Amino acid sequence: MLGIFDSGLGGLTVVKEVLRRLPGVRIIYFGDTARTPYGTKSKEVVTRYALEDAAFLRAHGAKAIVVACNTASTQAIDALRRESDLPVFDVVAPAVRAASSGTRIGVIGTRGTVGSGAYQRLLADAAPVAEVTALACPMFVPLIEEGWAGTPEAAAIARTTLRPLRLRRLDTLILGCTHYPFLRPAIRRAVGSDVRLVDPAREAVLELVRALKADPSLSRALRARGGHRFFVSDKTPHFAAIASRWLGRPVRLETASAE
Amino acid sequence: MLGIFDSGLGGLTVVKEVLRRLPGVRIIYFGDTARTPYGTKSKEVVTRYALEDAAFLRAHGAKAIVVACNTASTQAIDALRRESDLPVFDVVAPAVRAASSGTRIGVIGTRGTVGSGAYQRLLADAAPVAEVTALACPMFVPLIEEGWAGTPEAAAIARTTLRPLRLRRLDTLILGCTHYPFLRPAIRRAVGSDVRLVDPAREAVLELVRALKADPSLSRALRARGGHRFFVSDKTPHFAAIASRWLGRPVRLETASAE
Repeated sequence: MLGIFDSGLGGLTVVKEVLRRLPGVRIIYFGDTARTPYGTKSKEVVTRYALEDAAFLRAHGAKAIVVACNTASTQAIDALRRESDLPVFDVVAPAVRAASSGTRIGVIGTRGTVGSGAYQRLLADAAPVAEVTALACPMFVPLIEEGWAGTPEAAAIARTTLRPLRLRRLDTLILGCTHYPFLRPAIRRAVGSDVRLVDPAREAVLELVRALKADPSLSRALRARGGHRFFVSDKTPHFAAIASRWLGRPVRLETASAE
Repeated sequence: MLGIFDSGLGGLTVVKEVLRRLPGVRIIYFGDTARTPYGTKSKEVVTRYALEDAAFLRAHGAKAIVVACNTASTQAIDALRRESDLPVFDVVAPAVRAASSGTRIGVIGTRGTVGSGAYQRLLADAAPVAEVTALACPMFVPLIEEGWAGTPEAAAIARTTLRPLRLRRLDTLILGCTHYPFLRPAIRRAVGSDVRLVDPAREAVLELVRALKADPSLSRALRARGGHRFFVSDKTPHFAAIASRWLGRPVRLETASAE
């Protein structure tokens, strides 16, 4: 089984990509909805939560872990790899590789993701001559989770928030949070139509496909009989509605604690 | 010592009122910033967290507890009173009493607060002939926490969100979340200038003042030498900045877990 975790439900966009590109893989998902969001919290707290999330997936039979959350990928990936005997895939490194052909590269994400400096450090290595600008966009997750993504109000907030990036005349922008692709039209209008938008979820799954091609035994370990399982640490009617909408099909959420 | 807890930092508005009206009382505060917000989470999870928060305050010497969070007050007050040997004050009952002279009463709050039905039930008892309308405003907390309160974007979201209340021609509106007074001008414009706005934090502290007048031994128990203490379960530069801004003076946050 392939374990995928996220601070909440945003990681279901990664699940959707895996289902499309790796139909034989059996998924176990954990969304930490009882402690969501991670993006406003410190490295120490995010690391502790991420280690618990990964341990939960391992205990339930995962043979590899995908960290679907950009905040956890930037804050906790070293700790996750140090503590884990399973392969751990993140969303940040593949996004950096995809963006590294740019010369004026922007990164947007949560306060935690941008504050960690992880994207900035990796981009400095991968694209040493590029100009890199990182910007926290803390309003985007609530706008998307609360259903405002297509509204004029969200477009106005995106325009105001992203003005500093517009002035940098980017050629490439990493949407460094699993939620942000839902706000893609507003982001696109705010930064200009000639900017290439990089979606880390998509890049991470493409990388996973390549890794599984190169490692048939891991690929076999991720295939198993039985259905996918979707665990959350808290379930409300709103969370359930979001889950089905984002996965694009009805989903039965099971409740479990990772603590 | 008087224990005050909240899902995060919003409860500092209650602290501010206590400092103003009960200057002799020594405060111990706990803000659960590692698991904030509570407003999106289920009754079960909110109840578990609230019990842990109250136990933390009791273990650190609190002789009475104020639940500064509307969500915890509506979802967990029965459990808190059942499990506690200390007096537990909440913000909901005082707000209901203050609003009960209205005839067309509105309540706004988080998804959890409104979904619990607690305000609606208490208002049906206290003001049986009044028309009551409750509305969840899940965007208001992020707008306030991220510093958008005074902006045209926030005003636009408030106007769109509150349109159903405007149509009800309210005479009274309960701002059923400790954050909402920060958005008062936008809310006022959206619902009309003749609506009386009830602030539960203010009403709760007025009630506490009356309770302490009636119970001198409790009043004595809350007075103690030494400074106030402010604990949070997670500390980031952003949380620290919010805390000082909302309390209206510099504050030293100490980190502790309630789990």
